Amino acid sequence: MRKSIATVSLSGSLSEKLSAVAAAGFDGVEIFENDLLASPLSPEEIQLRATDLGLSIDLYQPFRDFEAVPDEVFARNMRRAERKFAVMERLGADLMLVCSSVSPDAADDDALAARQLRALAERAAEHGIRLAYEALAWGRHVNTYDHAWRIVEQADHPALGTCLDSFHILSRGSDPKGIEDIPGEKIFFLQLADAPKLAMDVLQWSRHYRCFPGQGGFDLAGMLGHVLRAGYTGPLSLEIFNDVFRQADAGRTAIDAMRSLIALEEAAGLSSLPAPVVPDGFAFAELAAADTEPLRSLLGSLGFVRTGRHTGGKPVELWQQNEARVLLNTVSGARREGPGLVALGLESPEPAAAVRRAESLRAPVVPRRRAPGDVPLDAVAAPDDTELFFCRTDRDDHPSWTADFGTPAPQRGTAGITRIDHVALTQPWHHFDEASLFYASVLGLQPNESLDLADPYGLFRSRAVANATGSLRVALNVAPVPGEQEVRPQHIALATDDLLATARRVREAGAALLPIPDNYYDDLDARYGLDPESLAAFRELGVLYERDTDGREFLHCYTVTVGRVFFELVERRGGYQGYGAANATVRLAAQHTADAGSRRS
Amino acid sequence: MRKSIATVSLSGSLSEKLSAVAAAGFDGVEIFENDLLASPLSPEEIQLRATDLGLSIDLYQPFRDFEAVPDEVFARNMRRAERKFAVMERLGADLMLVCSSVSPDAADDDALAARQLRALAERAAEHGIRLAYEALAWGRHVNTYDHAWRIVEQADHPALGTCLDSFHILSRGSDPKGIEDIPGEKIFFLQLADAPKLAMDVLQWSRHYRCFPGQGGFDLAGMLGHVLRAGYTGPLSLEIFNDVFRQADAGRTAIDAMRSLIALEEAAGLSSLPAPVVPDGFAFAELAAADTEPLRSLLGSLGFVRTGRHTGGKPVELWQQNEARVLLNTVSGARREGPGLVALGLESPEPAAAVRRAESLRAPVVPRRRAPGDVPLDAVAAPDDTELFFCRTDRDDHPSWTADFGTPAPQRGTAGITRIDHVALTQPWHHFDEASLFYASVLGLQPNESLDLADPYGLFRSRAVANATGSLRVALNVAPVPGEQEVRPQHIALATDDLLATARRVREAGAALLPIPDNYYDDLDARYGLDPESLAAFRELGVLYERDTDGREFLHCYTVTVGRVFFELVERRGGYQGYGAANATVRLAAQHTADAGSRRS
Repeated sequence: MRKSIATVSLSGSLSEKLSAVAAAGFDGVEIFENDLLASPLSPEEIQLRATDLGLSIDLYQPFRDFEAVPDEVFARNMRRAERKFAVMERLGADLMLVCSSVSPDAADDDALAARQLRALAERAAEHGIRLAYEALAWGRHVNTYDHAWRIVEQADHPALGTCLDSFHILSRGSDPKGIEDIPGEKIFFLQLADAPKLAMDVLQWSRHYRCFPGQGGFDLAGMLGHVLRAGYTGPLSLEIFNDVFRQADAGRTAIDAMRSLIALEEAAGLSSLPAPVVPDGFAFAELAAADTEPLRSLLGSLGFVRTGRHTGGKPVELWQQNEARVLLNTVSGARREGPGLVALGLESPEPAAAVRRAESLRAPVVPRRRAPGDVPLDAVAAPDDTELFFCRTDRDDHPSWTADFGTPAPQRGTAGITRIDHVALTQPWHHFDEASLFYASVLGLQPNESLDLADPYGLFRSRAVANATGSLRVALNVAPVPGEQEVRPQHIALATDDLLATARRVREAGAALLPIPDNYYDDLDARYGLDPESLAAFRELGVLYERDTDGREFLHCYTVTVGRVFFELVERRGGYQGYGAANATVRLAAQHTADAGSRRS
Repeated sequence: MRKSIATVSLSGSLSEKLSAVAAAGFDGVEIFENDLLASPLSPEEIQLRATDLGLSIDLYQPFRDFEAVPDEVFARNMRRAERKFAVMERLGADLMLVCSSVSPDAADDDALAARQLRALAERAAEHGIRLAYEALAWGRHVNTYDHAWRIVEQADHPALGTCLDSFHILSRGSDPKGIEDIPGEKIFFLQLADAPKLAMDVLQWSRHYRCFPGQGGFDLAGMLGHVLRAGYTGPLSLEIFNDVFRQADAGRTAIDAMRSLIALEEAAGLSSLPAPVVPDGFAFAELAAADTEPLRSLLGSLGFVRTGRHTGGKPVELWQQNEARVLLNTVSGARREGPGLVALGLESPEPAAAVRRAESLRAPVVPRRRAPGDVPLDAVAAPDDTELFFCRTDRDDHPSWTADFGTPAPQRGTAGITRIDHVALTQPWHHFDEASLFYASVLGLQPNESLDLADPYGLFRSRAVANATGSLRVALNVAPVPGEQEVRPQHIALATDDLLATARRVREAGAALLPIPDNYYDDLDARYGLDPESLAAFRELGVLYERDTDGREFLHCYTVTVGRVFFELVERRGGYQGYGAANATVRLAAQHTADAGSRRS
C-alpha cells in the first residue's frame, strides 16, 4: 500500500523533513500545520518541493475545535476554515484532518456536530477538498472512533469521511473490531502509531511517547486487519509525536519509520518479504583496537588460543576456545575510546537469504573490502554501526569464514569456556527503539521487556533480544539521556558449565577479575541462605548470583575493563533465561570503583 | 529541626554522597541499602566516615516484603532480618525502615501482620534496633498511612513505630489531617518528598519524578504541620527518587536539597529567616563578550545611548534608554560562545536584607573584586552562575551603582523603549527545578506553570518566575535533555508602549529584525481575523501577536542573534501576563532559518 508519514514525526525544518521522507522511500506526507507556519517556504514552494521529491501531500492537519458550537462561534470557525482551504489549495492538498473538539464551546450534541460538519464539507467540496473527522482520545464529547463515525454517518456528505488513528483507538482500550462496520470508502485516512503501554494521562502519553509500529505494546497488525477488512484502500500513514524523534537525525528516523511499515505490512499479510532467517548462535565477535596487546593478554588468561591470522594479510587474529571465537583487529590510527566491539558473526542457516531479508527491511548492506582470496561474507550494519556477518562455520554446504584464517582446528582451551553466551552493545541514545525493531524484524529475534538499571551516575535502559532457544542473545543498553553513558563499555559474555572452576583457572592464569564488595555477599546470604561453602567461593572469586522464582540459577563474574570492552563469564543452571539484572547496580558500581582505582594508580 | 537525606537522592558512590551531604550542612543520612551493597567500604568504615563528617545514620532502608506471610516464609524473613540487624549493628544504625509488603505471599490479614511485626520488633529490640513501618502507596494490602498505623497500634511494641512519607500519603490523595491522631512518639521517622502533579502510575511517578519540597505540586508545609501537631520531634528527611538528580553533581544537588528544607521549615513556621525582599524591577542587564562591537552597534540601532564608562577603569560601558539599562563588558580572552548575559541588576527595596535572605538559603555570595572608588554592591550567584546584584538606582537612601559610571543623566533614547520587560536565561539541564526553587525562595518570585515549547530540533521546557506586579520577570528555559540546546541563546526583552512605532524606528536605524514566515500571518488572520492594516504592519515588521482568552494582547518581535544573545521588543496591552508561548515554535524555527542563512553567507 502507499506509505506516508506526518512531518511532525521528524526533526528539523520542513525542507529537511521532506528530503528525509523522500530519501527513505515514502510515497507521501501529511503536512503538520506548525511545520508549514514555521517554514520560510510558501505553500506553492512546498508543493513544488514535494513534487520534485516524488511525494504526494496526502493530508493537511490538524483543524481543531470546529464542531457543535453556538452560531456565532460557528461563523468564526467557518471563516477560519476558509482561510485553511485557501492554504490547502496553494499547497495542492485535498484532504484535511478535522479533530473532534476539545473546546469548552462545544456542546454534547451529535446532531449539531453533524449539521455543522456537513456545512463545512459542503464548503470544502467547493474547493475540491475532503474532510476526515477523527476522534481524539481526549476529545471533549467525541473521543471514540465509533462516535466520530456515527456523526460522519449522520452528516452524510460525500466530502466528509472519518480518519482512524491507532493510538487514539487502542490507548482507550476500544475494540477495533467495530471498524469493520464502517464502509471502507468512508475511511478517508488511517494514521498508525504504536506506544509503550504506560499508565499515564492519555494526552501526555500521546504527545511524548508514541513510537513506530512494532516498537510499542499495541497490536497494530490486528488493528490494520480490521481496517483492511472494512475495505480501506488509502495510504498507511505514520503520525508519531515522540520527544526522542524530535531530536534525532531525520534521515535515520525516516528509515526506521519505513522499516516499521514494511514489517507491519508483512505482519498484516499485505506483503511477503523474504522470510526471517533466525541466527542460531555466534560465529565470532570482533574487537578492534589500535593496540590489541592488552586484549591478547586478557584472552590468553581467559584460556583462549590464537589459532590463526588472516591469510589475506589483514591485521586480524582468530582466538578460539571450543565454540567461542574472538577476532582481534589491530586497526590503524588511534581510537580515542580504546578497544571496541565492532562486528558480530552470526551463525545463519542461510546467509544469502538472511541478507535478502535484511535488504528488504532497509538494513544497509556493508560493502566488503575483500582481498582476492577471501571467503565471500555477507554483512549488514546494525543501527549502532556494529557489522553483522551472516556465517556458516565449518559446514560442508557453505564456504566458511575460518578459511580466511587457514581453517584452524578446534581448540579446547584451558578454562572451560564453551561459547559466547551473549554480547552487550551500547546503543547511541537516539537509537534504542530503532535497534530493538531492527533486531526483531531483520533477524527475527524476540525482544524482552525493557528494564531500568541503576548505575551510580544515572539510570540506563536495557533490553535483550534473543532467539527462541536462547542460543543467540544480544543485550542492548542505552542511557536514558545522552551524556557520558554513551561511552559505556560493551561486553562479551562467555558461557561455561562450571563458573567456579573457570573463574579459578582464569584467575590463576592472570586474568584480573572485577572485585565485588563484601557487603553484596552479606546481602546474598540474607536473601538466599546459600550454603557457606558456595558463599565463600562466590565471595573469594567475585561471583554474582541470582535465583529466579522457579529456582533456576545464574552465576556470573566479570573481568576488569580494557578500553571500552570487558568480558563476563556466565553459568546458566536449570535453564535460567535472564541476565542477572538484580546484580547490575552492584556490578556497575564495582566497575566505577575499579576504573577510579586504575585512574589513581 | 535535624535535617537528613536518603543517599538514594544523590548521584555517585556512597563516599561521594556522604561528603556532599555533610558539605551541604545536613545532620544525618538515611543509608539506602543498594548504596551500601555497592560500596567497597565495610559497614564499620561507613560508620567511621559518617562520624568523621559529623553525620548521624538516622535510618537504614528499606526492608521489604516482611509481614503477613505463611509460617515458612515468616521464618525465612526473620532470618533475612537478622542478617540485616547484624549489618546495622556494624553500621551503628538503630532505626530500620520496614515497607508494607508488595509480595504475592502477603495475606490481607492485619492481625497476622501485627503479630509478625511485633515478633520482628521483639527481635530488633534485642539488638537495640527500632522499626519504622511505612505504607507504600502501592503496597499489596497496606497502602495508606492510617492502615499502617492501625497495624503498628495493634502490634503494640515499643520498638515498633510508623514512618510517614509525604509522597506515599499525598500521591494517593489521603487526607493528612488524620496524622494528628497518631501519638508523636510513635512516628519514628518522617520522609519528605514533593512531586509534580502527574497523572501516571504511582510507582513510576515515585521512582522517577520525585523532587525536593517546593519544586513540585504538593502542600508539604501543610503536611508537615500535621506531623508537628502530632508531636513528632525526629529529623526532617528527604527521600527523593529522581532521574535527573541521579546524574547531577551530588554537591550541587545536596545544597539544593538543603535549601528546600530551610524554605520548608520557614513555610511551616519552624524558623524565621530574614524576610524575602522581592525585587521590583531591573536595574540593568550585563552582557559580556570579547568583542563587544556588534552589541554596541545593535544597542545603538535599538535607540540606546552610551552614557558612561566604568570610572574605576573596568572595560564596562553603560547604555541607557529611559529605565532600560544595559552594561557591556569587554572581557579578555575569547569566549567560544560569543556574547553572553552574565549578570542582572535587580532593583531591591533593601539590598543588604536581600543578601541576608539569600545567604540564609545557601545562595553563594559573589566576592566583589572592587576597585577603591567603587560603590559597594551586593551580589549572589544564581544556579546557572548568572550574578544577581541587589541595587537601588539613583535613590537618596542608598549608594547607586550608577556612580561607578559617573552618575549619568537619564536618556530618553530614540526608539520608545521604556524598560527591561523580562530576561530569558538558559538553564543547564540539571538545574531547572533548582533554579525555580532558588528564584522562589531566595527572591520571593512566583513560578508560573512549566511549558513544553517545540523547537524544530527538540522540545524545551520553559517556566517564568515573576513578582506580583509583573515588573520583574525572568524566563527560565531548558532543553529536556542535555545536548546542543544547552547553548541556546539567552535574551533581553525590552518594553515599549508602541511596538509598531518602535520596530519601525529601530529598523530604520539599522537593527536587523528576525524575519517571520508569511505563512504565520495567514494563520494569524485565520485565527484572529485582525484588521488588514494591523496584519499588514505585523507582516511587514515581523511582529508576532497573541491574544489571551480575556482579550489582552501581546505584540513582540526579535532582533537577530549576536553570539548567544538577542533582544526582543514587547508591548503588553490591557495587562497581558504571558510571554507569547503560542508563537515560540514559529520564532524558534525562524531563528534556526536565520542562523543557517548567516552561516551560509
